[in-house]
Amino acid sequence: MNSRGVLNIGLFGFGTVGRGLYDVLEETRLKEARIKRICVRDITKERGVKADFTDNPDKIFNDPEINLVVELIDNAEASYHIVRRALEMGIPVVTGNKKMLAYHLEELIAIQREKQVPLLYDASACGSIPVIRNLEEYYDNDLLVSVKGILNGSSNFILSKIFNENMSYPAALKLAQDLGFAESDPSLDIDGFDSLFKLIIITMHAFGRYVSPEKIFVYGISQMSDDDIRFATEKKRRIKLVAHVEKLPDGRMIMSVMPHLISRDKYIYSVEDEFNGVVIKGKFYYKQFMFGRGAGGYPTGSAVLSDIMACHYNYKYEYKKLNAEVVPEYTDDFVFRIYLRYSSQEDLALFNFLKIRESYTSESSSYVVGDVRLSDLCAIKDEIRKRNLFVAAYPED
Amino acid sequence: MNSRGVLNIGLFGFGTVGRGLYDVLEETRLKEARIKRICVRDITKERGVKADFTDNPDKIFNDPEINLVVELIDNAEASYHIVRRALEMGIPVVTGNKKMLAYHLEELIAIQREKQVPLLYDASACGSIPVIRNLEEYYDNDLLVSVKGILNGSSNFILSKIFNENMSYPAALKLAQDLGFAESDPSLDIDGFDSLFKLIIITMHAFGRYVSPEKIFVYGISQMSDDDIRFATEKKRRIKLVAHVEKLPDGRMIMSVMPHLISRDKYIYSVEDEFNGVVIKGKFYYKQFMFGRGAGGYPTGSAVLSDIMACHYNYKYEYKKLNAEVVPEYTDDFVFRIYLRYSSQEDLALFNFLKIRESYTSESSSYVVGDVRLSDLCAIKDEIRKRNLFVAAYPED
Repeated sequence: MNSRGVLNIGLFGFGTVGRGLYDVLEETRLKEARIKRICVRDITKERGVKADFTDNPDKIFNDPEINLVVELIDNAEASYHIVRRALEMGIPVVTGNKKMLAYHLEELIAIQREKQVPLLYDASACGSIPVIRNLEEYYDNDLLVSVKGILNGSSNFILSKIFNENMSYPAALKLAQDLGFAESDPSLDIDGFDSLFKLIIITMHAFGRYVSPEKIFVYGISQMSDDDIRFATEKKRRIKLVAHVEKLPDGRMIMSVMPHLISRDKYIYSVEDEFNGVVIKGKFYYKQFMFGRGAGGYPTGSAVLSDIMACHYNYKYEYKKLNAEVVPEYTDDFVFRIYLRYSSQEDLALFNFLKIRESYTSESSSYVVGDVRLSDLCAIKDEIRKRNLFVAAYPED
Repeated sequence: MNSRGVLNIGLFGFGTVGRGLYDVLEETRLKEARIKRICVRDITKERGVKADFTDNPDKIFNDPEINLVVELIDNAEASYHIVRRALEMGIPVVTGNKKMLAYHLEELIAIQREKQVPLLYDASACGSIPVIRNLEEYYDNDLLVSVKGILNGSSNFILSKIFNENMSYPAALKLAQDLGFAESDPSLDIDGFDSLFKLIIITMHAFGRYVSPEKIFVYGISQMSDDDIRFATEKKRRIKLVAHVEKLPDGRMIMSVMPHLISRDKYIYSVEDEFNGVVIKGKFYYKQFMFGRGAGGYPTGSAVLSDIMACHYNYKYEYKKLNAEVVPEYTDDFVFRIYLRYSSQEDLALFNFLKIRESYTSESSSYVVGDVRLSDLCAIKDEIRKRNLFVAAYPED
């Protein structure tokens, strides 16, 4: 069994996850890895732990003893520069930055190949659920049909509090932030972008195809109103923010992030609070469901630790599916059944319904259920985010 | 990326799983692997497929083109000889035989080490759920606390039919067999031995400790009566056959296979029909739940295919935890709260209750709820299987 010997970690970032990793390492007293130095933006801030802090990245990059960079900062642009610099110097990297990965994954894969140095990021998607590792290693043949799940713990926590405890939206958001589940910019959670970034990473490992974030329909829960909650409850469903990639029978592949009205018999109906749940569907094994904590310092910290240990054992992603003979093309040529709540005819007119299946109008709030093309939704995604309306996928039972 | 080139498979066995693998391979038209020859016991039986059948193992072992043995026969003793012979010849092996593994794993690990040849068996535990691979690769540090689950699809199918559809026990068993979920010897499923064998394999990969099957308390559902079902339902619980390994705070480890009265808020409460569900509990990530089809030709066949593909990419289990500094000792020094339904004082006297918490007597059937030592249960396990009584773990809410 090969191993890298002791890993001396240069850690970037000491927020919720960085601190979680620190605590997990303290608790486990691993011999294989130790944090040698921590680079933070604000060196004057009291951290409450005894460690070698610096605000100068060179103190990590120029330390010949440091043989692993763990990058857990918030800023995607800065993360990219740190990760690229480390890889180009031949230093293995563990990162949790999904936004950075969603935009730079193709280039970072190329650098990994060229420099023969691993970049691991299982912690970036679904916290403690090893979804990337499983897609990479286990669901590695063309039996895979779809991956669908709740990938953002913070928005799911908020939805749970609203649906189960009648909490108000601002109160639920505040609680999520206080508990350390929410990103510093809550719109990343609430508007679906955090889920989108994770979906892009997952799709790379599920189907070997990189699709840039701009191309994908993403829509969150920030416009959800009491009317929408009432509609869902009347239909015996719950609203969940769902990310989804699926290979169509013709071999092409669709992706989306949007609220879904989920019926009781679905696995993800019962995914509550800050938990994540992923349903992996295959041709012969039907459905598999993985479920666990998707947010918070300790669960994500222990996911980072699993990546660190994988690094210790020289594990790297093989990206086998990138080189598959047939890699699915991304398409938005697909029809969804949606629920749309709106208040003005002008807003309704934005939607190009192929078919109306149900409609209700009243002075205060109206809705339609009908079929729309994913491509038409994509075209108006930036527009509808600003309007007083709410869209959710409403699959037939 | 290294690979073994095309795998020419010598397949042993063409029962439910062997046929499942054949169909999955036909459907996927993989270039990386093909079945070259199939060794079956009865060569005269009509199989309905065009393939090169033989009843002579030498036709596989002496074929220099065959570079992978896939062993999917029912008989554990014959399986052991096939697997050992292949490994000693330096031929990689994929097997699904949990009974064989449960008894011979230690020796087979030694042969793998000596001959540097892989033996993969993710398909042996939980069909399509990659539980071994995840324990081996992801939960590879000492944060792991317990693995607990429904590991036998057939008995769970029967329990589901009894609890949800009021089906009789024999009718449910017959249906499970007709659908191909049950082992040819149903007592393996019903009396918990199939779950036990899987638990032994899982424990090896979870905690690096081999414990021989005889040492472990195993008790199944074949004595379950209407009274027990009524008791469970009154307490708003369901009876599930649960396999369980857990590291105690003192570092030792307990194991058991027995029915549990499961309350509604537990993940495995909702695992129905032939599905398997495994809850992995860790120090920092709390609980993770993996769920999928645990039985049947196609799900298990596709699990075998994942092992075959892993072989193609030169994957092998590292058995890292076997060499850990501290490997937990097995102990049965532990107290369980149980439900015992009995009809004679003589049967009741078999149990050494430390404390009685609840008791009910009637002319036809009586029960007690109380605390017993796991070691005391172990001592009477062969005796109680023959008696008109029923034992289930009854954890406090």
